[in-house]
Amino acid sequence: MHDCFHDPAALATFSPEKMNKVNLYESPRMFCDIYCLEPDQVQKDHAHADNDKVYHVLTGTCRIRVGDRTESLSAGKIAVAPAGMVHGLHNDSEQRTTLMVIMAPHPVLEN
Amino acid sequence: MHDCFHDPAALATFSPEKMNKVNLYESPRMFCDIYCLEPDQVQKDHAHADNDKVYHVLTGTCRIRVGDRTESLSAGKIAVAPAGMVHGLHNDSEQRTTLMVIMAPHPVLEN
Repeated sequence: MHDCFHDPAALATFSPEKMNKVNLYESPRMFCDIYCLEPDQVQKDHAHADNDKVYHVLTGTCRIRVGDRTESLSAGKIAVAPAGMVHGLHNDSEQRTTLMVIMAPHPVLEN
Repeated sequence: MHDCFHDPAALATFSPEKMNKVNLYESPRMFCDIYCLEPDQVQKDHAHADNDKVYHVLTGTCRIRVGDRTESLSAGKIAVAPAGMVHGLHNDSEQRTTLMVIMAPHPVLEN
């Protein structure tokens, strides 16, 4: 059986080169990843015409852009990037940060 | 502009009658809610044929069923209920619990 229970704190792994993505689940309907950013790592600003994305900060603090707004979000906070809206990440803190990220539908697997 | 940044801890509200849902975002592609359960409140076991659901425990502890597995998940843990799989909640602790819940696609608004 597919393992349906996850501990993101135990699964987070980091890369010195760039933001690392750890996939927990994917289907044509969505993906659920953990994004892991060392200090100063980024996810460059981009947009998806037909996909919504939710960022949920799990640990640390991350600077998040959605549309024309940019805020530093601490652990526990949520950012929603509706389809078509530019969004991106920058860990401008001195600590690692992790986020749970859900996109729907899945940008590659969607039917 | 749509407010894209949220603090679920500040938005959680509870009902003495039943589990309370606080919606943060919805579109045909997904909803993102905060579920708020007083001790002994439940979301009864059910399934969605064509929708995935992710539960993320934000505060407290919640007993979560997915398929034939049931576990008590503490804050930070994630449960994924793929389409077609029975799932439900029971706050069997003595504290309030809150969860972020994302379902994709939206079961009512989907095209």
